[in-house]
Order: sequence, then structure tokens, then C-alpha cells
Amino acid sequence: MNLVLLREEDFTAPGRARLTGRRQRHVLEVHRAEVGDELVVGLLGGSVGRGRVTSLEDGLHLEVVLDQPPPPKLPLTLVLALPRPKVLNRTLAAATSLGVASIYLVNAWKVEKSYWKSPRLSEENLLEQRILGLEQARDTVLPALHLRRLLRPFAEEELAGIVQGTTALLAHPGVPGPCPRDAGGPVVLVIGPEGGFIPAEVELLSRSGCRPVNLGERILRVETAVAALTGRLF
Amino acid sequence: MNLVLLREEDFTAPGRARLTGRRQRHVLEVHRAEVGDELVVGLLGGSVGRGRVTSLEDGLHLEVVLDQPPPPKLPLTLVLALPRPKVLNRTLAAATSLGVASIYLVNAWKVEKSYWKSPRLSEENLLEQRILGLEQARDTVLPALHLRRLLRPFAEEELAGIVQGTTALLAHPGVPGPCPRDAGGPVVLVIGPEGGFIPAEVELLSRSGCRPVNLGERILRVETAVAALTGRLF
Repeated sequence: MNLVLLREEDFTAPGRARLTGRRQRHVLEVHRAEVGDELVVGLLGGSVGRGRVTSLEDGLHLEVVLDQPPPPKLPLTLVLALPRPKVLNRTLAAATSLGVASIYLVNAWKVEKSYWKSPRLSEENLLEQRILGLEQARDTVLPALHLRRLLRPFAEEELAGIVQGTTALLAHPGVPGPCPRDAGGPVVLVIGPEGGFIPAEVELLSRSGCRPVNLGERILRVETAVAALTGRLF
Repeated sequence: MNLVLLREEDFTAPGRARLTGRRQRHVLEVHRAEVGDELVVGLLGGSVGRGRVTSLEDGLHLEVVLDQPPPPKLPLTLVLALPRPKVLNRTLAAATSLGVASIYLVNAWKVEKSYWKSPRLSEENLLEQRILGLEQARDTVLPALHLRRLLRPFAEEELAGIVQGTTALLAHPGVPGPCPRDAGGPVVLVIGPEGGFIPAEVELLSRSGCRPVNLGERILRVETAVAALTGRLF
């Protein structure tokens, strides 16, 4: 936790916040904060600044000044075939920490149906994983997150609009074109499931404006691929 | 497991191997392999090819042809301040899957002493995590792995030799120079602990030939940073 993320409801008065629960424990046990210490804080969806610990009685009390903008987002929209539940958590946190602006989780032939029933798809967990990513990267602004359980209508009706004015890429092993570097503008990046998109899906996504590009011989885990491609493109 | 990694001792005769344990279970339960199916296989430290399942009795028997070279390594040496044990596992597997050629795990002021006593530093675990990375990326060649429990002698006596003829970079927040992209040759990349290197360490590593470069405002987890920087540099 490189930034303590505050919510409106943490404020007891203007410039005064009170932490309890996970954040209080983390600040006490990991940061070993004492009265008078300063922490990097931010307001969810708002500015970044500093919080001075004023009291540890009945919660952790902070005097807060928020005077800096959060880091800018990357103009990157990720379209991910829904990963396995335990991979999903890590991928959401990593993508958020990297500054991805928007994430679509979509279905694909090789996404197991059970993944869509995982408790990790609860709104609460999807929020928590992105919050962990924000706290890691000292950001305050959640990436937008959309779930699309049907690939075809998403690709045919929605994706064409999303890709407009962007470099739209479909990471796919075995195609000839390499992934470009330093895109210099907004990018939509589509990444398939373990085992890849099937040919009909590649065709569908290509028709919606995504250019298949290859990432070399190595097959990477989705969270590794997201980070490597983000580093390459921005 | 995108490649079943064989060892010399798995071979019962030339071109014939027998799997038991974790790999047998994985091939049966995840790949749902049956007699006649073909799997991508490779020999640890050797070639890649295909294995046809010939029998499931008393182990999983394969008829093996190894006729392809493994994917080339990246000319990248990572020098990592020893991460927290649970982060270490993921980082080793991710770095291996990306094709890192060589990894040094080193001490730093902000590396907790207890990390050096973790069972995850056993030779067995360090091997297993790299094997998982090879199986992920369809590689067969382990990255070299070195543990250096004293930073100063490593930096003063060994690092200067390692960086010779390379682009040597020290990822460090707050310095002015951005990380280059597309290095076009061998790179040594030094990444600090959570909380960063202290100024004396930055100076020590700089004297040994590593140029401090910054990675933007965002603080990334080490495995995310490794992947993003690798994507940027190669």
C-alpha cells in the first residue's frame, strides 16, 4: 500500500479522516505509523496528498491535505477473455496499477463456463482488486470495468465504436505481424483466453477492426502479457 | 502447462518417456489426454518437439520426437533486491516465461532479513518456479540464478564485469532520465526492493556502471515492473 485510499465517508470533518479495518491495520502493522507520521493519501476518484497521523485512539485519525492530481491514465482499453478466477484478481490489480483506463471482460469459446459463476466476479471483489492496484501505484481513479457475457453482440455492436480512432490490436500467436511499439495514441488491446481465441473469434474480432498481431514464440500468462504489452506500447 | 518438460531420467528408452506425479496428473486432468493424443514436449536444457501418448498404464507413456530449438533467450540480466517470499515465486516464474537469461537475487537495506530464511529460497523451490515459467512459455532452458547476500561486494567486485558491453539500468523512482526503449542489445536491469534502494545503494550501483532511470510516477509490483520493462526494452 503505497497510498492510503480514502473515501468520502472516511472524513469526519473537512481535512480530517478516520481509518478503521484493513487500512488501519496495514498502516499500523506494515508502515508502523505513529502519531506525527506522514502518509501518502488520496481520495478515491480525487486528488493525492499527505495525511498526518493525529491520534491512534478509536481508529487512526489523519489530518489530510489533498493538493496533487493523480497520475494520468494510459489511453489503453483492455478487452480480456475472462481469465481463471485466481488469475483474474492478479490481472485486475496489475492492469489497474499500470494505469489502464478501461477493461472489458468478455466471453470466448475457451473460457470455461464456471468462471462466470465465480464469487470473484462479485461487484465487491472486482472493486477490491482495482483498489489494491490503485494503492500500489498511488492512483485514485478506478479503471472502468465492464462485463460482457456474449462475445458476438459485443464484437458486432459495441467494439466497432470502442476501436474508433484507436490502434486496435488482437494479441494472437502465430500471425505474421509483430506488435507495434510506442503507439503514440489510444490503443485497444484484445487478449484471448488460455488456449487462445478460435479462428471464428479471430475473424469476428478482425471484422470489428482489431488487427491480429503476434507476441513472439513465448506464451505468457495473461497478467504478464498485459504488463509486457503495456510497457511496449506506451 | 503449455509444454511438458521432460528430464533425462524420464526416458525409458530412446524416444520413449514415462511421466508420473504432477506432470502426469496435469496432462490427465487439465489436458484430458488419451492414448493417441499429441502433446508439446521439451527436454530440460534441450530441444522442443511432440510426444504421442502410447499408454496410460503404470504412468503416462509418450513416444517423443524432439526436433525444434527452444525459443531464444532475451539478452537480459535481472538484478533484483530479494522480494517478499510470495512475490519471489511469481517473479521468478514470470521472468523465466519472458525469456530472461540470468537473474541475480541480491540484498538491500530494505530487504527484510527474514526473507533470506524463507523456505522459498530452497534450491528445490527456486528450480520449481523457473520450471513453471518454462512450461508456461514453451521454453526448456533455465535462466541462470545467483544469490548474493551481500550487496557491496557484489556491486564492487562482480557487477562491473556483468555490465560490461551492456546497457546497464537501475530502475529508480524520482530520477530525471526515462527508461530507454528497444535497447537493441544486451541489458542489465537492476530493480530495488519495496520502498526502493537507499541513496547510498543508488550511489554504489551507479559507481558500478548502472544508470538510474525512472519508470514514471506509478509504483509497480516487482513482477509487473519486470514484465513492463522487458516489453519496453525488447
